[in-house]
Amino acid sequence: MSGPTHIPPAHWNLDSIVSGLREARVAWRGPRGRLREDAGLREFPSQESLRQIIKDLCGALFPMRLGPIDLREEVEDFYVGHTIGAALDALLHQVCLELQYVGRPEQAATPGTRERAIEIVRQFGAELPRVRAALDLDVTAAYQGDPAAHSVDEVLLCYPGVSAMIHHRLANVLYRLDVPMLARMVAEIAHADTGIDIHPGATIGSSFFIDHGTGVVIGETAIIGDRVRLYQMVTLGAKRFPPGENGELKKGLARHPLIEDDVVIYAGATILGRVTIGKGSTIGGNVWLTRSVPPGSNVTQASLVSDMPDCGLGG
Amino acid sequence: MSGPTHIPPAHWNLDSIVSGLREARVAWRGPRGRLREDAGLREFPSQESLRQIIKDLCGALFPMRLGPIDLREEVEDFYVGHTIGAALDALLHQVCLELQYVGRPEQAATPGTRERAIEIVRQFGAELPRVRAALDLDVTAAYQGDPAAHSVDEVLLCYPGVSAMIHHRLANVLYRLDVPMLARMVAEIAHADTGIDIHPGATIGSSFFIDHGTGVVIGETAIIGDRVRLYQMVTLGAKRFPPGENGELKKGLARHPLIEDDVVIYAGATILGRVTIGKGSTIGGNVWLTRSVPPGSNVTQASLVSDMPDCGLGG
Amino acid sequence: MSGPTHIPPAHWNLDSIVSGLREARVAWRGPRGRLREDAGLREFPSQESLRQIIKDLCGALFPMRLGPIDLREEVEDFYVGHTIGAALDALLHQVCLELQYVGRPEQAATPGTRERAIEIVRQFGAELPRVRAALDLDVTAAYQGDPAAHSVDEVLLCYPGVSAMIHHRLANVLYRLDVPMLARMVAEIAHADTGIDIHPGATIGSSFFIDHGTGVVIGETAIIGDRVRLYQMVTLGAKRFPPGENGELKKGLARHPLIEDDVVIYAGATILGRVTIGKGSTIGGNVWLTRSVPPGSNVTQASLVSDMPDCGLGG
Amino acid sequence: MSGPTHIPPAHWNLDSIVSGLREARVAWRGPRGRLREDAGLREFPSQESLRQIIKDLCGALFPMRLGPIDLREEVEDFYVGHTIGAALDALLHQVCLELQYVGRPEQAATPGTRERAIEIVRQFGAELPRVRAALDLDVTAAYQGDPAAHSVDEVLLCYPGVSAMIHHRLANVLYRLDVPMLARMVAEIAHADTGIDIHPGATIGSSFFIDHGTGVVIGETAIIGDRVRLYQMVTLGAKRFPPGENGELKKGLARHPLIEDDVVIYAGATILGRVTIGKGSTIGGNVWLTRSVPPGSNVTQASLVSDMPDCGLGG
Amino acid sequence: MSGPTHIPPAHWNLDSIVSGLREARVAWRGPRGRLREDAGLREFPSQESLRQIIKDLCGALFPMRLGPIDLREEVEDFYVGHTIGAALDALLHQVCLELQYVGRPEQAATPGTRERAIEIVRQFGAELPRVRAALDLDVTAAYQGDPAAHSVDEVLLCYPGVSAMIHHRLANVLYRLDVPMLARMVAEIAHADTGIDIHPGATIGSSFFIDHGTGVVIGETAIIGDRVRLYQMVTLGAKRFPPGENGELKKGLARHPLIEDDVVIYAGATILGRVTIGKGSTIGGNVWLTRSVPPGSNVTQASLVSDMPDCGLGG
Amino acid sequence: MSGPTHIPPAHWNLDSIVSGLREARVAWRGPRGRLREDAGLREFPSQESLRQIIKDLCGALFPMRLGPIDLREEVEDFYVGHTIGAALDALLHQVCLELQYVGRPEQAATPGTRERAIEIVRQFGAELPRVRAALDLDVTAAYQGDPAAHSVDEVLLCYPGVSAMIHHRLANVLYRLDVPMLARMVAEIAHADTGIDIHPGATIGSSFFIDHGTGVVIGETAIIGDRVRLYQMVTLGAKRFPPGENGELKKGLARHPLIEDDVVIYAGATILGRVTIGKGSTIGGNVWLTRSVPPGSNVTQASLVSDMPDCGLGG
Repeated sequence: MSGPTHIPPAHWNLDSIVSGLREARVAWRGPRGRLREDAGLREFPSQESLRQIIKDLCGALFPMRLGPIDLREEVEDFYVGHTIGAALDALLHQVCLELQYVGRPEQAATPGTRERAIEIVRQFGAELPRVRAALDLDVTAAYQGDPAAHSVDEVLLCYPGVSAMIHHRLANVLYRLDVPMLARMVAEIAHADTGIDIHPGATIGSSFFIDHGTGVVIGETAIIGDRVRLYQMVTLGAKRFPPGENGELKKGLARHPLIEDDVVIYAGATILGRVTIGKGSTIGGNVWLTRSVPPGSNVTQASLVSDMPDCGLGG
Repeated sequence: MSGPTHIPPAHWNLDSIVSGLREARVAWRGPRGRLREDAGLREFPSQESLRQIIKDLCGALFPMRLGPIDLREEVEDFYVGHTIGAALDALLHQVCLELQYVGRPEQAATPGTRERAIEIVRQFGAELPRVRAALDLDVTAAYQGDPAAHSVDEVLLCYPGVSAMIHHRLANVLYRLDVPMLARMVAEIAHADTGIDIHPGATIGSSFFIDHGTGVVIGETAIIGDRVRLYQMVTLGAKRFPPGENGELKKGLARHPLIEDDVVIYAGATILGRVTIGKGSTIGGNVWLTRSVPPGSNVTQASLVSDMPDCGLGG
Repeated sequence: MSGPTHIPPAHWNLDSIVSGLREARVAWRGPRGRLREDAGLREFPSQESLRQIIKDLCGALFPMRLGPIDLREEVEDFYVGHTIGAALDALLHQVCLELQYVGRPEQAATPGTRERAIEIVRQFGAELPRVRAALDLDVTAAYQGDPAAHSVDEVLLCYPGVSAMIHHRLANVLYRLDVPMLARMVAEIAHADTGIDIHPGATIGSSFFIDHGTGVVIGETAIIGDRVRLYQMVTLGAKRFPPGENGELKKGLARHPLIEDDVVIYAGATILGRVTIGKGSTIGGNVWLTRSVPPGSNVTQASLVSDMPDCGLGG
Repeated sequence: MSGPTHIPPAHWNLDSIVSGLREARVAWRGPRGRLREDAGLREFPSQESLRQIIKDLCGALFPMRLGPIDLREEVEDFYVGHTIGAALDALLHQVCLELQYVGRPEQAATPGTRERAIEIVRQFGAELPRVRAALDLDVTAAYQGDPAAHSVDEVLLCYPGVSAMIHHRLANVLYRLDVPMLARMVAEIAHADTGIDIHPGATIGSSFFIDHGTGVVIGETAIIGDRVRLYQMVTLGAKRFPPGENGELKKGLARHPLIEDDVVIYAGATILGRVTIGKGSTIGGNVWLTRSVPPGSNVTQASLVSDMPDCGLGG
Repeated sequence: MSGPTHIPPAHWNLDSIVSGLREARVAWRGPRGRLREDAGLREFPSQESLRQIIKDLCGALFPMRLGPIDLREEVEDFYVGHTIGAALDALLHQVCLELQYVGRPEQAATPGTRERAIEIVRQFGAELPRVRAALDLDVTAAYQGDPAAHSVDEVLLCYPGVSAMIHHRLANVLYRLDVPMLARMVAEIAHADTGIDIHPGATIGSSFFIDHGTGVVIGETAIIGDRVRLYQMVTLGAKRFPPGENGELKKGLARHPLIEDDVVIYAGATILGRVTIGKGSTIGGNVWLTRSVPPGSNVTQASLVSDMPDCGLGG
Repeated sequence: MSGPTHIPPAHWNLDSIVSGLREARVAWRGPRGRLREDAGLREFPSQESLRQIIKDLCGALFPMRLGPIDLREEVEDFYVGHTIGAALDALLHQVCLELQYVGRPEQAATPGTRERAIEIVRQFGAELPRVRAALDLDVTAAYQGDPAAHSVDEVLLCYPGVSAMIHHRLANVLYRLDVPMLARMVAEIAHADTGIDIHPGATIGSSFFIDHGTGVVIGETAIIGDRVRLYQMVTLGAKRFPPGENGELKKGLARHPLIEDDVVIYAGATILGRVTIGKGSTIGGNVWLTRSVPPGSNVTQASLVSDMPDCGLGG
């Protein structure tokens, strides 16, 4: 009597669910003055669009490696121009969305939103050659830093640390052009793909390399010099306590570490607060560090316990 | 003589590979009595379907943020009803698959499988408004807990910790409705996307926030109060040893920590076993803790070494 | 006066961006002798293709679980043969790409590249039944090792540790057949999906299980026995310092741990260098270990501090 | 030496082709004053968008037949509202594009373009229930008119004549609301799919049926009564000659036939000019007719030759 | 002040449209007893599914021509078995849908619907080798019949007449197995693609060829011998009048022409009614014929006028 | 007792179907010497690829009308170069396939196949600017020839006759470059989309326009002058009889009409054989013509019957 199509006459009380959800939305929107959401439009930038924009930019930055599989050199410049043109047009739309966003009411009244957006995108586009050059140095650093790497191409295509840096260097340009939400969304794309969480505000020098990478966290005001190398699960974070502290750090305060040139930080090390790791230092695995160390230091768990009893070890 | 189509006349001995794989399947299925797999049908729930169901539910829960990019308020309720209707129909199919699953033979004989599935889905649907309200509190907690957050919308759209909680609150409803495999599959979707691994059985209070999140693990019987905050690489796990212990914990035993209200646990902290972290406590980074602490405690690596020599430090 | 289509007459100075990027490419390619890239073709293997190949192989290895949702047993062998045939054809193309890769100039001159590629793929195909049998043991180990697992099917479909092992056992065959870049690309697919980073060169015995898994790193020359179990954030790495060491380890040197049968390593443990963990040992959470331990050892943080003060604790 | 990837180093002289095409565009645009195309934007409505809009409207008009395959009645109104909402939003964009189209310069200056577009779409939406009712009568006529039809559902889903009428009744509403290009584009979608070419301006009464349909052409000012039936390759066209006529018919002149109620026109018949086919007449196959016939006529090729020698037979 | 996202706050009165459409549906369903549509499920076969099934069967019938672009012979049988298996499974679902269809209430009560559906699909599958052999003859006929054809492969891949016959020979098997709606839907797929409208009930002998094809109509009870050739716009239809006839032909009556072996019918010829065209006859272009002709006839418009004044020329 | 997943344990005797189909293939391939199909590869050009190539070329020819919806003029040349580059690369592959095709064995031995293919594609590319200019004239002719046309853009985007000519002018270039199968495949794409069947070998002058178009057939050796206009169901065919003729016309013989400048041919007219229609003539609807007419003729059905009794009227 039954067949494959005999699905039961289920009933979900959809009217009740829909009205329950509507009430929940009203309860949320009311206190926030959002009951009339600016003509009822969703006004937030789109992660899907950004993902496509970044993918296109990756192709345009490295056409023979991340562009279309069968690209030939005769077509290279055409491809690059076409792809960047489309990506910047799409980015313009997203920048407008961020600038108009209701959370920044002072800007809603500004008549020049569109003009500002165009200027931002134009400057972003102009930075791309510089970004490419910086990424070439990162790729070279990864290739030289990992004895297992076979070629710069393998590094570019396979290494999550390199992928994270492509995203970061683009996100950082957006951050400096004052579209921080777009910057953050780009960073979270890399975070989801690689497990590496670099705040787009972080300032990172040339020839930077993160190996393995899962669990790395780098905070907004971190400053990293040239030729620095990091391993998985390294945190460059803010020192959020001792107890009694308010915990509501003011935005923009320099609260993350300053890592000087040629530092290596091994897996699981945690460095917190606006401390300085001096040039050429090595920070051992799982080390927990909340104070500055001079250039050339070699910090290990053992050294912390034996040599520096008063060093502020611990949370 | 050759051209782009001159692919070599390769031969893979496919007959041999196919028969080798068939033998491997028989060797596996035989001892498990699966040689005749209930008319030869694949009967397990589908991760792809669940992924779509969750995506649709996200859109229905937050229509103007996670729904279609151009949704307008006039269409909102229609969209919500249509989308939830489709998602619950699809979920019904998955619930039937889990209930009929051969691994639970006692249920295969029950004639009321379909009716039970319908009842489960109906109750799941009825929970959605409550889930939305709970997620609003989580979003607010994230917004207030991170000084870098620009708006509640950014938090909802970008923060992996919030994404993990959307999945968890849905997975937890499924878990409580006794479809644990579907619940687990939903949790693993979030795990793959965010690196945050929350067992769907974990009980989590309101206004919960996980920052950064990569590497967080929360076990099945963990109980977490209100306004709790966690950072990356925190483990709330089971205490699987000291040596000599059998290690085969009985399912369902309360074996994970109980975290009371207003606790903050910093990155890398590991808390194991059915211990209680008292209300308002702060657990420092990288702390390894296997005993209860009273309300208002401030536990750091240093404090563990100096102040609590008998605290069970270590594995 | 304006409408939804009134996008501003933006201008990005595309000509300038395109020429800037061209200069950056020339600056990169020139020193590497790549200004004429072998007729202008992109010659690197494709991650997208590999992802599809692996997906097809997963379906062919476990047709009733990872194959098409509605596969029936009558069709099983046809499906397996068709799918493996297509996957091996596609793999042949990728193997040719790796063999011809410009970074290995000595092979570009070899006329037998195609024949070698065919032979590699043929051997790879012949290994598939053995891989399936090995994975069945891994699945069983996961099922037996996690009290929360409901069935072997749930383990196969949901557990990131099992997914990582499917990828690893395939990647390892590629590695041993001397196409290390393809092997690495397969490993990175699993790394991105699961947060588990196993170098394809690692030798792993039967019945291996990784629980939770995020942050696990296993190095190229690691050797792991049978029935070993690992938890999240375990590192089996190379011992890259004490200070003064050159750090440029020669490729191929045995530099990662040797884990004997029946060892369990808990979350966050870090084992570095060519040390041996004796049969049946247990390594506790967060332990940092750089020396060998005899069979039956039970190593914890506490034991390291109290019992083995000279054990090389630390980086 | 070669392999599957050895594609020749072809070169297409792309620079020359691109500049040749640019010159061809300039040669075209110059005389039309299009060298600066209103900020360089493509401003014409999109056939792809219209195709999707029509598909959505078909689903909303017949939700259980042309809507999603698994729609249930509980969800029906939600689906209809959601789908129409999305379709009308998309249509608004297309209407704006037509109204702003450069070919109608008098409207470019009108500030109320958007308001007019909204009003057009609102009226279009309000017509949908009436369109559905009219289509129900068409479906019934097809079912009753073809002895081979098994059910009204088969007629709705399979008959190209019914598909053409769904498109026509929607296109005709657009035509009457003064967006003739959109109307035409909808008509051409049906033309491509069914080979039936009905100008959107044609006025067609109720219970209309076209059997087989390939090659049917119905002109802009044709007026068709109720219960009319047509077969394949029937033309209701304009009488474009006798020789000496200018041939540039003024737009809007009534120049196509007027078919009264209950007329049947068999395959291949051609009726040209503003002639009237009286109520209840039958026009035989392949008849060529350029004069009016009274009600109840039965016109065949034979009757034209023998009984009406002066009837204007021929072109 | 405005930007690209400033879409107007349009409002479509969706509630009113939705309720208007609901009323239209109720007005339609009420008189047909469909207000409760068998648990609210859409139960009609799906054209999309059939399209995929036919596409798969085409690939399986001609694997090296219509199968996957890169199929190799080693994989051929695996591909064929896998593809036919999937297609027949999908067809089973569609057959069940037709058998359960509410328009055939006598079958809804039959418990053996599923068993009948399985038997139908099994017989359909068993016919496939015969269908392939018949199509090979059709392809050969097309190749020999058109001097412009370069190869049998070109004929198979490019000729709409051949595509129509692939669909017809499959549709005819379905028709003879008593699933006439599925048969009709397959025929309409070919009709939409090629403009050739062959009723699935038509009986067509071997080595049949339609050139160009647009506008060809072949009726349900037509019988066509071997080696027959047709050109575009040929109709083999039912004789629906002389005037006064009721026009409601009873289903199943033999009412279409019987074309004997080796007949050629040129473009635009119309043959109506159960007449016999004798073996080896030639019917000229645009001829209108409603009586039988003996074997070896050569019928032209001229011959009809001059030699056969009583031949029933005309409608 | 059953649920939605209880699909019956159907069995299709796949082994038998597969072997039956294999035998049918062997029976077909054996006599054609195809049992070993050149290493088992499918070597015929791909209709799907050609469809994409043509779509890309359409976009490149008319970037602001048929290119991406949001193309801006700054990007235009980049888009054109990128798109043509990709299209020509893809076309090169298809040309190689045709040249290597087994049906032309004399070429299989030619070592220069690839070089010839490159030369063909290079010449094809060089023709594109000329094709664009010719199409501009066709568009203008359509705009001027149809009083219902609102703009040249509407004509380009909506008129099937224009779409057919875009395909024809590209197909004709391929035909003249001696890749007739690719040319034919392009023509059949237009045939399927528009019902207009123009052999790619037909020579068509400038400013050509086909209105409505369904059922038009234009033969291989037809030659059409400038400013010619055609309506639906016009045939310019070969005269295949009087009876007794062999019917196997030799390929390449001039056997289709020669239409001089400024001719108009109305719907349904059929002109057969190598006849000449003199400059400026008008051919009436449904006229059947097999002889030449002088310039300035006005041929109608009536004129054929009354004025030209010996004109060869009829088949």
